[in-house]
Amino acid sequence: MSVLAELTIFPTGKGGSLSQYVSRVVKLIRDSGLAYELGPMGTCVEGEWDEVMELAGRCYRELEPDCDRVYIVMKLDCRRGAKDRISGKVASVEKRIAQS
Amino acid sequence: MSVLAELTIFPTGKGGSLSQYVSRVVKLIRDSGLAYELGPMGTCVEGEWDEVMELAGRCYRELEPDCDRVYIVMKLDCRRGAKDRISGKVASVEKRIAQS
Amino acid sequence: MSVLAELTIFPTGKGGSLSQYVSRVVKLIRDSGLAYELGPMGTCVEGEWDEVMELAGRCYRELEPDCDRVYIVMKLDCRRGAKDRISGKVASVEKRIAQS
Amino acid sequence: MSVLAELTIFPTGKGGSLSQYVSRVVKLIRDSGLAYELGPMGTCVEGEWDEVMELAGRCYRELEPDCDRVYIVMKLDCRRGAKDRISGKVASVEKRIAQS
Repeated sequence: MSVLAELTIFPTGKGGSLSQYVSRVVKLIRDSGLAYELGPMGTCVEGEWDEVMELAGRCYRELEPDCDRVYIVMKLDCRRGAKDRISGKVASVEKRIAQS
Repeated sequence: MSVLAELTIFPTGKGGSLSQYVSRVVKLIRDSGLAYELGPMGTCVEGEWDEVMELAGRCYRELEPDCDRVYIVMKLDCRRGAKDRISGKVASVEKRIAQS
Repeated sequence: MSVLAELTIFPTGKGGSLSQYVSRVVKLIRDSGLAYELGPMGTCVEGEWDEVMELAGRCYRELEPDCDRVYIVMKLDCRRGAKDRISGKVASVEKRIAQS
Repeated sequence: MSVLAELTIFPTGKGGSLSQYVSRVVKLIRDSGLAYELGPMGTCVEGEWDEVMELAGRCYRELEPDCDRVYIVMKLDCRRGAKDRISGKVASVEKRIAQS
């Protein structure tokens, strides 16, 4: 199954901008080799279940040492026989809108 | 406050592709006049609380007539004194990564 | 349609316990007259769309004056012809487990 | 760190009640030995990161064989030095409300 996951992870209890924490996580995702896309409210990544979850664990452990509280939201759309959905889902919707 | 919302909405109980439902919702968002960005796991939109929630209600009512069950996930990041965050948050993270 | 919503709302950038903020929101929900249930990761409330969303707006405005950044996650399960689902969904699952 | 996770998992594309699928997942959680609480919109479970994520993987693999599409939402509140938060967070909020 293709596991398309959106990962949102940030520390609570830190004032001001959170981009210094988010950028550390996004670097891990970028270097994972999995297809990904950075968005305003989370980063999407696509792979098999174990690949995606192992990466989520590394993101958590990246922040754990210097953050006393970390909040995470994950949404996962798992679909048999699907692939290339980071670009494919958006393209499918845009095609339908163009035809309507 | 800037309300940056990510809206995911789809019917459950409908087999196959859901893009015909998602595209109806995305058209409403596109025509709302609010800044938005379509992503693989949801659509981000930015505005004031009432603007964003009125739009969410229209998305719900778009699907309600022909869907017996609708599932929605919304994440909202509300921040005082901020604006243009659909592009700004991603740019801020990418800048930090480039500098590191 | 029955709108069963789980609302999670908290300020970011505030150190320590967040229960002082959460309790202000839960009081609003309790006093709303809608059916609700407090849980470890959010509060469930059931009503019509407009009732639930008007309440969500009041929760946001409760924290807005003294919080510069507020994070919200909402999950909504909207189902035609359903009711009393705060207790009903859990009872339905527990009955199936008992029979298995 | 205490990892308090709320897990929502269901197939899409299946009509009618989803309780037959949800109950299979809840049985796995119940039998895991981790502290848990079943709620109307998801099940909360508390443990260490690896314990919680290994359990999430078993829940996914429970539905994967007979579901072509599975949707998952996870929220995680990870906090250093905390424990017994499934009952503790709700008790903390209720105590504050009683005192106000």
